[in-house]
Amino acid sequence: MSENLAGQDLLVRVGEVVGDALLGAERVFIEELSSSHAYVTDVLDHAARFRGKRLRPTLLLLSAAATGGIKKDHEVLAAVLEMIHTATLVHDDVLDEAETRRHVATVNGRWNNETSVLFGDYLFTHAFHLASSLESTLACRLIGRATNIVCEGELTQIHERGNLDLAEQTYFQIIDGKTAELCASSCHLGAHFAGADEAVTQSLESYGRSLGVAFQIADDMLDIAGSEQETGKSLGSDFRKQKLTLPLIHLLRTSNAQTASRVRELFSEPNAASWAELAQLLEDSNSMEYARRRAEEYTARARAELESLEDSTAKQLLEEITEFVADRSF
Amino acid sequence: MSENLAGQDLLVRVGEVVGDALLGAERVFIEELSSSHAYVTDVLDHAARFRGKRLRPTLLLLSAAATGGIKKDHEVLAAVLEMIHTATLVHDDVLDEAETRRHVATVNGRWNNETSVLFGDYLFTHAFHLASSLESTLACRLIGRATNIVCEGELTQIHERGNLDLAEQTYFQIIDGKTAELCASSCHLGAHFAGADEAVTQSLESYGRSLGVAFQIADDMLDIAGSEQETGKSLGSDFRKQKLTLPLIHLLRTSNAQTASRVRELFSEPNAASWAELAQLLEDSNSMEYARRRAEEYTARARAELESLEDSTAKQLLEEITEFVADRSF
Repeated sequence: MSENLAGQDLLVRVGEVVGDALLGAERVFIEELSSSHAYVTDVLDHAARFRGKRLRPTLLLLSAAATGGIKKDHEVLAAVLEMIHTATLVHDDVLDEAETRRHVATVNGRWNNETSVLFGDYLFTHAFHLASSLESTLACRLIGRATNIVCEGELTQIHERGNLDLAEQTYFQIIDGKTAELCASSCHLGAHFAGADEAVTQSLESYGRSLGVAFQIADDMLDIAGSEQETGKSLGSDFRKQKLTLPLIHLLRTSNAQTASRVRELFSEPNAASWAELAQLLEDSNSMEYARRRAEEYTARARAELESLEDSTAKQLLEEITEFVADRSF
Repeated sequence: MSENLAGQDLLVRVGEVVGDALLGAERVFIEELSSSHAYVTDVLDHAARFRGKRLRPTLLLLSAAATGGIKKDHEVLAAVLEMIHTATLVHDDVLDEAETRRHVATVNGRWNNETSVLFGDYLFTHAFHLASSLESTLACRLIGRATNIVCEGELTQIHERGNLDLAEQTYFQIIDGKTAELCASSCHLGAHFAGADEAVTQSLESYGRSLGVAFQIADDMLDIAGSEQETGKSLGSDFRKQKLTLPLIHLLRTSNAQTASRVRELFSEPNAASWAELAQLLEDSNSMEYARRRAEEYTARARAELESLEDSTAKQLLEEITEFVADRSF
């Protein structure tokens, strides 16, 4: 079975366990965001077209299924997490001046930056409003704290833009904030609201964090060596926006003085020719391989966290997801 | 006593009633936002310099003082409201491409748009995180709902940009969302958390709403005929951004065909000369006077809402504030 077909098969089996709840979360998502303003509805309908893998809702619901079972609150929480994630995507597209996402024009591409900024805000505030419909303030607190960390991660990323001496450690701090934190929270909330004990909840949170780190490393690699057709994004966007990611950090650290100096030259003049030369240097070095190895290290950590869980179909699926995260082409 | 001196005197007397709690709210504000990232701290320190009148915290605390008295929760709520307001200002400055606010460079002027977008998000998420530190989800729900409405108001404003046929009713809907809603919520939360009954809470909410509408009409008038030195903003920004406000809506509705046609021409070519001519047309008509009258209508409504309250210094101050809102120069 090819990798893609195996991925399809996994999606079908995930759907068997969490499909109904995912649909429920989708209904909550749409209902919470519905507006009497035709213009807001237009933007919402458009943005729905580039929503993607539903990774965070899936992690949340599988974590619930693997512990005490999925409840109504989980559908609400899954919708909240997806809303926050969508808000960060919409604002990221402003930051990146991106024209397309998943083959569809971004909100700023289709309307303008102002609409994107306000629509992202609209998603954020509705997410918190929806979280406050639950009985206790716990979800609001956890989600608020996680989102604070996401913003700090993104602010640090902007601050370090163009810094060719970015330490690998800082790169990991950035992706831990901007990506892994929300995956960790998804698993934590899934388990906690299923009634899991503190130790199991912590294990699932750590699982989500390691998975998120691996996911982001893979995402950064796809920006270098992916297929525009499969990813639905234009490649080299990190390079254009002067963001250093793991392969480039490794290349700068390990190459000889001449190559390192050439890399610095290329990086300081982002255009199609310098990007082609840099992408080739990255391919020819073992920097992509290094990044892949680091991602696999994190997926192995994620799997190890699952060991303490009782056997279940959901646990099995959480394990299998780790294999696709680091080695994906979409 | 000149108007400004009378304003100073009012501020001193407000300070005597809510000064300690305002300082408490300020401490909560700073503590919630503090970050271990030096860059985030830099942006925070900078943004602190253009924060202004603390209108929303003041309304919240006076509403509490006028009903059951100020409690610790009110300081938290005041900090939350001020954080949300600051977030909307930071994002507004991106939308308006504003370079200065209150004589200080905006975040996007000093850093860049990306930093403004993310810093605004940081303020939003911390506001909701802080709100969730209270015991019940009530504050989160009310604040979430209010902020949803603020975003819808701002989205409608962007959508109606450049629409020379904007109905007065739509203008009022926009300012009700983008400004009055948060003033109404401030008063509502102040009264509710002081233990006021439903009727008093509703009266204070209506007071805040009418006050907010009057405040925004006055703000829009200052953009036409204010003093750049006193307001700390460059004039005519609504014109440059193609936003119709009350005086211009009135001018278009009431002037003869020739003038209306000239106004449309001027509006479609925003530059210094067309702005000077338009500002003069507005001054020469009774459109500014009309807007002032409408603002005073709302401050009268606000005062009427206070009648059901028992007499107190705080009630007296809420009354006096209405007189400065519609007729201010800063």
